Parts: sequence; C-alpha cells; structure tokens
Amino acid sequence: MAEFTSKIRTIEWIDTYSRMVDQTKFPEHFEYIDITTGQDMYNAIKTMIVRGAPAIGIAGAHGVILYAQELEKQNLPHNDFIKQLLEKADYMASARPTAVNLMWAVEKQKEIIRNSTSDIKTLIEELKANGKKLELEDIEINKKIGDYGASVVPKGATILTHCNAGALATVGYGTALGVVRSAFAKDPSVQVFADETRPRQQGARITTLELTMDGIPVTLITDGMCSYFMKKGMIDMVCVGADRIAANGDAANKIGTYTVAIAAKYHNIPFYVAAPLSTIDTTIKSGDDIVIEERSHDEVTHINGKPVCAEGVKVLNPGFDVTPHELITGIITEKGILKPDYNKSIMEAFKL
Amino acid sequence: MAEFTSKIRTIEWIDTYSRMVDQTKFPEHFEYIDITTGQDMYNAIKTMIVRGAPAIGIAGAHGVILYAQELEKQNLPHNDFIKQLLEKADYMASARPTAVNLMWAVEKQKEIIRNSTSDIKTLIEELKANGKKLELEDIEINKKIGDYGASVVPKGATILTHCNAGALATVGYGTALGVVRSAFAKDPSVQVFADETRPRQQGARITTLELTMDGIPVTLITDGMCSYFMKKGMIDMVCVGADRIAANGDAANKIGTYTVAIAAKYHNIPFYVAAPLSTIDTTIKSGDDIVIEERSHDEVTHINGKPVCAEGVKVLNPGFDVTPHELITGIITEKGILKPDYNKSIMEAFKL
Repeated sequence: MAEFTSKIRTIEWIDTYSRMVDQTKFPEHFEYIDITTGQDMYNAIKTMIVRGAPAIGIAGAHGVILYAQELEKQNLPHNDFIKQLLEKADYMASARPTAVNLMWAVEKQKEIIRNSTSDIKTLIEELKANGKKLELEDIEINKKIGDYGASVVPKGATILTHCNAGALATVGYGTALGVVRSAFAKDPSVQVFADETRPRQQGARITTLELTMDGIPVTLITDGMCSYFMKKGMIDMVCVGADRIAANGDAANKIGTYTVAIAAKYHNIPFYVAAPLSTIDTTIKSGDDIVIEERSHDEVTHINGKPVCAEGVKVLNPGFDVTPHELITGIITEKGILKPDYNKSIMEAFKL
Repeated sequence: MAEFTSKIRTIEWIDTYSRMVDQTKFPEHFEYIDITTGQDMYNAIKTMIVRGAPAIGIAGAHGVILYAQELEKQNLPHNDFIKQLLEKADYMASARPTAVNLMWAVEKQKEIIRNSTSDIKTLIEELKANGKKLELEDIEINKKIGDYGASVVPKGATILTHCNAGALATVGYGTALGVVRSAFAKDPSVQVFADETRPRQQGARITTLELTMDGIPVTLITDGMCSYFMKKGMIDMVCVGADRIAANGDAANKIGTYTVAIAAKYHNIPFYVAAPLSTIDTTIKSGDDIVIEERSHDEVTHINGKPVCAEGVKVLNPGFDVTPHELITGIITEKGILKPDYNKSIMEAFKL
C-alpha cells in the first residue's frame, strides 16, 4: 500500500512541555505554541487552540504530565501526590464534554498513576513514555484507517468532508483525511470538497489549509451547497470523522454532519465515518445518550470580531449532532471497515 | 383576517428617483439610498444593494423610468427614444439571471413603451404610474400570500426559513415572511428559526434584522443545524421564498434551500414555497432549465474583508439551487395554495 507523507505534526511532547499548532490562528498563520502548565492545557482544549477528538485526547494525556510536573515541585507525600494528580486528571478530562477520546486518553494516564509502584520522578517518566506511546499509536492507527478507507474510494473520486478530521485533528495523519491521504497516494486524481463548517469554519480554516500544504486538491463550498453538488453527480462519497460513536453505530460529529448524511442518503452516495476504536464508547447504547455541548453564541453571531446579525438576536449553538447508524455506510477503523449491524461488528472489532 | 403592520418599506419611487434600503450595510446600519440613474440601478441590483426576487423586479421597473428620464434629456426623435429605451430595458433585465421577477417587471414596462401612443413626457408619466402600480400590487399580493399561508401554520408553530424572503426582499411585507407576519398577527406564539444562509448571510444579516424590527421572535442558527432541530421536534414547518418556479413546481431559491427541503422530507416536516405568480415561469418545463448564477468567489473566501480559508483555494459558489417539486408540500401564492400535481394547479391558478 502506498504511504502518504504529511508535512503536519499537530501535537508533540518535548522533554518538559507540549508543543502544538495553534489552530485559532488559521488561516492567516501556521504557528506553534508551547504549553507548559496543566491549566494552560485545559484552556487550550477548551478554547480550541487544539481540537479534533484524537488530538485533544493526546493533549489531555500531555496535560496530566504537566500537572504531575507541577505537583512534583510541591514535595507532597506520595499518597497526596497521587490523590491530587488523579483529581487534576479528572479536571483535564472535563475540558470538553462530547469527545470520548479525551476521557479515554486521560484514563490511560490514570491507569499508570493508579498502578504505579515507583517514586514520583519515575512515575512522571512513565507518564511521559505513555504520552509518547499514545502519540505514535495515533499516527499508526490513522495510517491503518487510511489504508482500509482507501480501499473503498472509487477511482478519481471526489470526497466530500465536513469539519476537519485531518492531520490537524489528530497527531499527524488524520482519520477522514487519513483516508483521503492514503487514497491520494494510490490515485492522484482523487480530490476533496470541503464544507466550510459554520460556525467555527474548521473546514474553511483548517481542512483547506492542511490539504493545500500537502498538495491535495481541495474545493471549498458552504454548508448548504452539498446537496446541489451531490445532485450534479460531483460527489462520489462522503467521509467524516467522529467525536463519539455509540455501541449501535450512531456517531456524534461536528454540527452539520447529520444534514450531510441525510443529503447523501437522498442521493444514494456512500457515507463513511472514519475513527479509531478509541472513539467508540460501548457504554453508550445509542446516540440519544451522547451529551451535546452547547457552545458560546458569539461563534454564531460574530466572525472575526464583527457581528453578522441583528443585535441581541436569540441564538442556539449545539457543537455536535448525531448521525444515526442507518445513514452510515461503514465505520472505517484501524481494525477494518465495520458494517451494519454495528452492535455486532463493533463488539467483534474490540475482540480482534 | 388579522393584518400585520410592518415598519419596513424596502423600495419606493419618489417623484424622479428610486429610494431603497441599502442592504449591503446590514446588520450595522439601516440606511436609505436614492438611485438617480439607470446605470446606478443596474449596479444596485448586481451588487445586491437591493435583493430578493420581487424587490429587484420593482427596482428593474424603476430603472427603466430612470433611463427614460436620461434619454428624454437627449431630445431624440420619438422612434430613436423608443428603440434606445427598449435596449436599456433589456440591459436592466440582464443585471441578474436567475430571478424571473426582474424580467417580468421590466417586460411590464416594455409593454407600456411599445404600446404607447403618447409623447415622451406622457410616456414617462405612464411608466411612473405603472411602477407605482407594481409597487402597490406587490404589497397587496404579499398580504394575500400571507393570509393563505397563515391558514396552514400550526398553532404556536416554529417556522424555519432560509435566506430572506421578507419585507426586505419585496416592496414591504414579504412572501415567506409575509406568511410569518400574517400567522403572527393571529397567533403571537408563532416564532421563526432563521438559517444564517452562507455565503452572503442574508438570514443572519437581513431576516433577523427585519423580524427583530417588527417584534417577531427569531432564533438564528447556522445552515448545517436545521436537521438537528428538526429531529428534536423543534421545527413545525419550513417556509421559503423562490426566485423562479418552473411549470412543474420545481423551485429555484437561494443556495442551501434544497438541502433544507431534503432534511424536511426526511423528518416529515411540511415544506412550503411562498411566491407570487410572477415568480412562476411557465415557459420553463422543469428546474433543469433554470440558469443558476455562479457568483464571486470572494463571497465564500472572505467575510467582512478577511479571509476564512487557505490562500488560493479553489471555490465554487452557485447562488441558487433547485428544490424539486416532489419535496414541496405546497406553493403559497396570491391565488391560494397550489398543491401537486403542480403542472395542473399552476395552470389553473393563472386562469383565476
């Protein structure tokens, strides 16, 4: 299988701090920011300096190391250190409620903390090693997702994506855009249509940027346009990421995804979700139980600090929606492409 | 039937010029601009200082008067005056290709010009009288549309609309928002959800403004959110305007409308198009034959002069899409609510 080399490394632990691309500066600037405290990491996740379910998972794992370094300086008794660090880890996991990867990655660090028999210094090294392992695993997993996904991309396909499930949503290759990268490596006539993805415009600001950086052809459209191009026969498949997938295959992703899925169904266009198994939360039976974050209304009412609507108008701003499993053609994971019945195929994937 | 009084008069002929609300200044400013030359009117239509199919129809009719006033000063022989004015009228009608109302209203002026037996001064008075007649008819027609439409609005309904088919898209009452106004006059628990309507954000900039000015409750959402709220049972009906309707009921309207119509169908929510008969172009058999305007790419790539995407990224920007008749519950006109089979009901409405 041809492998695509991306220029982008979104987040990386360096010695004593976490270096990440500052995603609030797009599209004008592509800059790195070094996060050196636990609270700064919490804020970076909350304000979406780092975003994308897999990337904020890694950020959370890094955040736990940062808190461990801070607590170490307080010379606490070992038990107090452990207790306080576990509390800080829970706080870190609460920075955003919808993406399960954040809870998952923080939990991986908590396992290290709970099971450690070492002194504090060694424990911190163990947390760093685990953080690095999660980083490398994320890239590895994404490449597997990419390879499986590429097998269902038609020759010369135009792939519609919503939001950014790319290198910049992960450590460095991407889930939905990992599929695009692997498909493009095999077939350079593959191209992408990117939904703008209001309100935060991750499709415009981030997806067009990262695909352009990697030389993959991309056309920007606004969110309402997808059906128009589907009807014209200009979209061959849809591939999106996910923030949390329930046991029955219902998938929470950026607001607007559900609308695209309905449009794809209406036009008989395959709709794929690309996500690592860590995004699947088997404790949740269906999408009805997924908590949807209500985000700041400024995201809808203002762009670049200027109002786009009448003053004082009422606004709703759910950050995510749930695409029901019956609209999903397949879930592309590192263990293969899961197909309905998802209750069954998901359970089997976890056993592999 | 209760009648709603709107504060808004979008366009009006005053003695020797056309006064209109400058819709490029929204949402910060609500200002009037006086258009005094034919070329300025062409530009006002093209750059969307005035927009909305019925309003640009009236603007086109006013534009013909402005050209007549200019040609009068040239002291041309009568035949040359008529010939040049008809040419100018055709030029005015070409300012925007999709809305049939512009061609329709200019044609109404051309009939006056072709059939006139008067001298030039009298002809100009006839054109002014006809322009005023079209203005008043537009308000009258919209109120009838509003009354018919109100009869299908459920008690306490939340009505989703896309773009702006309001007072500010017409002379002064609105088509889709005319239905809202008439329904609200009968039942003040009626409220509106307004799609932002990227790229030009007419829903955010114009619909929220005009409904707020008239005291009608409105909630702004982004274009991708409609399905989310439909699934939650928070939308009871959809009502939109149209720029051109084919003989079979296929309706061209602002880009994104078709996506909303598919979502409404998926959730079994009634989807109405509100438009005067002048929007129906019976010379066009189906929506496939409606010309879709490709607009400037800056509308997608920039907001308030700032880029929202990577530099140089490819963009597509169709201004309209066509909602096929099978997704339309009814077409609300001044002659009643037309139902499928539209080929039949439209023909009958024209005979009434």
